[in-house]
Amino acid sequence: MNTVFLERYQSLVEEGVDRWVHALPSGGLYEPMAYLMRLPAKRIRPAALLMCCDMAGGDIRQALDPAVGIEIFHNFTLMHDDIMDQAPLRRGHDTVHVKWDVNTAILSGDAMLVKAFEAFTRHTGTMEIFIEHALAVCEGQRSDMEFEQRQNVSLPEYMEMIRRKTAMLLSCSMRIGAVLGGASPKDVGRVAEFGEHLGLAFQLRDDLLDAFGDPDKVGKATGGDLRAGKKTWLLIRGLELEQASGGGLLSGELRKGPAQRNIPAMLKALQELGARQDAEEQVAFHEGKAQEALDMLDVSTERKEPLTRLADLLMARTY
Amino acid sequence: MNTVFLERYQSLVEEGVDRWVHALPSGGLYEPMAYLMRLPAKRIRPAALLMCCDMAGGDIRQALDPAVGIEIFHNFTLMHDDIMDQAPLRRGHDTVHVKWDVNTAILSGDAMLVKAFEAFTRHTGTMEIFIEHALAVCEGQRSDMEFEQRQNVSLPEYMEMIRRKTAMLLSCSMRIGAVLGGASPKDVGRVAEFGEHLGLAFQLRDDLLDAFGDPDKVGKATGGDLRAGKKTWLLIRGLELEQASGGGLLSGELRKGPAQRNIPAMLKALQELGARQDAEEQVAFHEGKAQEALDMLDVSTERKEPLTRLADLLMARTY
Repeated sequence: MNTVFLERYQSLVEEGVDRWVHALPSGGLYEPMAYLMRLPAKRIRPAALLMCCDMAGGDIRQALDPAVGIEIFHNFTLMHDDIMDQAPLRRGHDTVHVKWDVNTAILSGDAMLVKAFEAFTRHTGTMEIFIEHALAVCEGQRSDMEFEQRQNVSLPEYMEMIRRKTAMLLSCSMRIGAVLGGASPKDVGRVAEFGEHLGLAFQLRDDLLDAFGDPDKVGKATGGDLRAGKKTWLLIRGLELEQASGGGLLSGELRKGPAQRNIPAMLKALQELGARQDAEEQVAFHEGKAQEALDMLDVSTERKEPLTRLADLLMARTY
Repeated sequence: MNTVFLERYQSLVEEGVDRWVHALPSGGLYEPMAYLMRLPAKRIRPAALLMCCDMAGGDIRQALDPAVGIEIFHNFTLMHDDIMDQAPLRRGHDTVHVKWDVNTAILSGDAMLVKAFEAFTRHTGTMEIFIEHALAVCEGQRSDMEFEQRQNVSLPEYMEMIRRKTAMLLSCSMRIGAVLGGASPKDVGRVAEFGEHLGLAFQLRDDLLDAFGDPDKVGKATGGDLRAGKKTWLLIRGLELEQASGGGLLSGELRKGPAQRNIPAMLKALQELGARQDAEEQVAFHEGKAQEALDMLDVSTERKEPLTRLADLLMARTY
């Protein structure tokens, strides 16, 4: 897919990130921040912020600090989440707590969160939005951790968790961009809704790809979530349908250790129970809601073009 | 010592903390915050913020949110520092990572830092001051951790570490209070200097008390820092003087394991080398500097009264 529409924003973000990294003081507190921020990344959230500013007729250069602030915050969450998940790798490189140590990752992450706030100080009206969403991201991560310890997680609980953990930061980025661009309060709300549904659809599709995706296209081995017993929308729905029909394959496989689980049998069950189809419908539902919000935006089709293309790009990930 | 002058501010802070705790949402992310904030504490920093607001002629009720914000931030640092130090107890109670677990303490601390920022959003001009100082506190904690791994720490390095880790938060509180009270830029600077030197004197005296204090008056067993080999101003100065004089008792004791160290002999050496006296002079120097800044303040003696009494209180801790 042609991504020229995106590259203009991405390269401005890269410029901002570079400048931010270069301005960091030397020392052990800042090196892990620079390391993480320099790992190759798609910068979707800050690029979406700039897009929404542009869409609303604002000067995207003026919005660069908050855009970088969103990326700093996102990387802060990665630094701390990787400690909590004991993850050894991030984007193919050592995580900070592995390359340095846990204490360094805790403290450098804390300072990184402070630096994220710093990026919003000179942009009236953005700090409150950022704070509200930053708190929601912490709440989402908390639920994600709690769900790992629980036997039963309902579909609404799961949706609320990914809404906070994933969708709200994209929504926050777009909302801040629209505010900075001078969009009307109504359009700011529509942009936020667009971002939220797009984020939800993206995460749900990501879960589906982990199960049914083509490893060559997805870029990683699939089935990892099922092996880990991770309660995704797909699996929760499968367990619901299985219980209703009196079956027990999925729950039986989940009682086994990860290495003993028969992943192909689980995939077959998810397919036959209709869980896969339900999950695909759920993706389509949120894609539709995102499209609706986009259609409602009170700007010309031409101005909406980058957001339309971004939605196509994020939704185009196929099996 | 009569502390009536302080209690008025402290009780207002307690009121604000109570209200903040009660307004917290339920759930696993917020319980650890409420727990830590409810442990009995002296609330010196937020009380000092209100005092400076009062001194400058402001309405202290209007300054309560930022005052509580300072206390939230302080407790956030305790929550994360206790993980890094593997401390089992805080103010005589289980630390958060012991009562819950490390991941909960990391994430709840992160959200607590966000909540601290929230407290400054409606008070123009305070956020920038807070961010600058919050970053300095992280830098101070980083140096403290680094010094534990190093053989040689110089006195200027140690002073810079405690300046950032301890003194700057008191200074920040006072500065914000003065700004909110409408003090002149000159007086804001003087108040900040007063807070910084007071904080330095307090920390240096605290180190002295840990070595030479009367356990009954200090309220804990003394000698803990020496047993742990902690490089305080006193010990660094002792090692300098010992090296200059060709002695080796202190460095010899430090090469032993903590349980084998002869603490009375170390105390005697610190006394005889003159390190104790030098440390006391250092305390007096910063107390003098604090007093100078206080004298320079362009307000009536009567208005300065609470700050004068606070300085007396913090300096009165005896051996």
